[in-house]
Amino acid sequence: MTGSIETISEQRCFGGVQGFYRHESEACGGPMRFAVYQPPQAASRPCPVLYYLAGLTCTEETATIKAGAQRLASEFGLVLVMPDTSPRGTGLDGATGDWEFGEGAGFYLDAAQSPWSSRFRMYSYVTEELPVLIGTHFPIDAARSGIFGHSMGGHGALTIALKNPRRYRSVSAFAPIVAPSQVPWGRKAFDRYLGPESSRWRDHDACELVRHQPFPGTILVDQGLADKFLGEQLRPELFEQACAAAGQELVLRRHAGYDHSYYFISTFMDDHLQHHARALADR
Amino acid sequence: MTGSIETISEQRCFGGVQGFYRHESEACGGPMRFAVYQPPQAASRPCPVLYYLAGLTCTEETATIKAGAQRLASEFGLVLVMPDTSPRGTGLDGATGDWEFGEGAGFYLDAAQSPWSSRFRMYSYVTEELPVLIGTHFPIDAARSGIFGHSMGGHGALTIALKNPRRYRSVSAFAPIVAPSQVPWGRKAFDRYLGPESSRWRDHDACELVRHQPFPGTILVDQGLADKFLGEQLRPELFEQACAAAGQELVLRRHAGYDHSYYFISTFMDDHLQHHARALADR
Repeated sequence: MTGSIETISEQRCFGGVQGFYRHESEACGGPMRFAVYQPPQAASRPCPVLYYLAGLTCTEETATIKAGAQRLASEFGLVLVMPDTSPRGTGLDGATGDWEFGEGAGFYLDAAQSPWSSRFRMYSYVTEELPVLIGTHFPIDAARSGIFGHSMGGHGALTIALKNPRRYRSVSAFAPIVAPSQVPWGRKAFDRYLGPESSRWRDHDACELVRHQPFPGTILVDQGLADKFLGEQLRPELFEQACAAAGQELVLRRHAGYDHSYYFISTFMDDHLQHHARALADR
Repeated sequence: MTGSIETISEQRCFGGVQGFYRHESEACGGPMRFAVYQPPQAASRPCPVLYYLAGLTCTEETATIKAGAQRLASEFGLVLVMPDTSPRGTGLDGATGDWEFGEGAGFYLDAAQSPWSSRFRMYSYVTEELPVLIGTHFPIDAARSGIFGHSMGGHGALTIALKNPRRYRSVSAFAPIVAPSQVPWGRKAFDRYLGPESSRWRDHDACELVRHQPFPGTILVDQGLADKFLGEQLRPELFEQACAAAGQELVLRRHAGYDHSYYFISTFMDDHLQHHARALADR
């Protein structure tokens, strides 16, 4: 039933509850899973909510297990919401078997091309359907929402925040894809999901979006310099240039020796949670 | 070659290095894997070393990924060593297919019964071979060693520390098996590994060991009260009674709502690292 959720599991964690849930998604035309961490404060009052978007091949479990985010979320009283990275079990020809496209690689956009447009609508899912669902079933203060993510999910967080500055008060990213129109991962996905017309691509490219509508707050980005995807897929210097040209406040930190993994993400997770907690504090 | 190790991977994490390694084990008669976290301090001086023994079904990766231990290990300057829970690929009939026995369930003892005695020698591995290997290849101060673990690995940590109080300065456990001679997991494993003669079992039973030789320091144990193994397999009250009778200092904390998972372990990991860091500080 639309609007209802099924609890897969709930476990005590740092004084709060780590849960996994399943529901029938209207946006994605099928079942979707997501994880929610409710801090102890959520037992007595609505809490700010922070959405985390994961990268290629990941699920709602990846960061829940590996990122170490619950400790400070518990301290700061943040609800963490971690959706899956795409619909699953779509049965569409070509939707599986390629880790860069299809299931596990939804790119946080609404596909415009058949057959993907029937199911791959992660933009509507993350920005519309999921927030309504979270607001219905969990004690959150939707006026205090932030968003962050990793790699493809960093792309998702940046583009979604830039397009919805009133909806999200804070945004950050770990090793994000910032210029998908210019790099192989993005070009492959956009070509199939959106079609070859590149005017459609601009609307899902952080470097393009920031030029027209900077985000009303500092964007925090961490990037490892031993990340094997740095030079070809991530290219943070393009976002640095776009932000400078647009007057966008950006803190881009480059870290020697760190790669693309959750060993990198967990190292800097606390800084990101502090960044969001500051922006999401009552005011 | 005996004494040499092969690096599987090394990744930057909290300013240090998270590595996975492989070597030919003499004790276990075949290849073994282990994980080591080197904190940033290890680049300039020998650091105290803390061994973590995992539970049934786990590997050297489990706690490395899920426990969130690297953050404080980095702050405190602790080297973390996480071995696998048994030899692998033994080819012995009955060594796989049962999650409570055999591969993934070595119980940190030296098997006395054929065919297990040829490969399942995790006691010698953890107390003799691995420390020598770690001392050879990593910048540790072996005089400052601690040990802890979870479930079957809590049993391992407690029994190993009680039998080797000069070798380990500190010990703690999450949801340990404390009385294997009296519970199904332990009785099944001990009967097969050690044979039916229960005089042999006492030497691997924390409740028995502590009566004869208490540990010269406080033992910290955390136990979740929503742990489904609590009443049948774990029975912390037996250890509480044995410690009281023996004059063993024990801090046993029972936590409402927590289960047997790494959501429980990660919640209390910081307290355990502080417990060990205090005991392992220079003095």
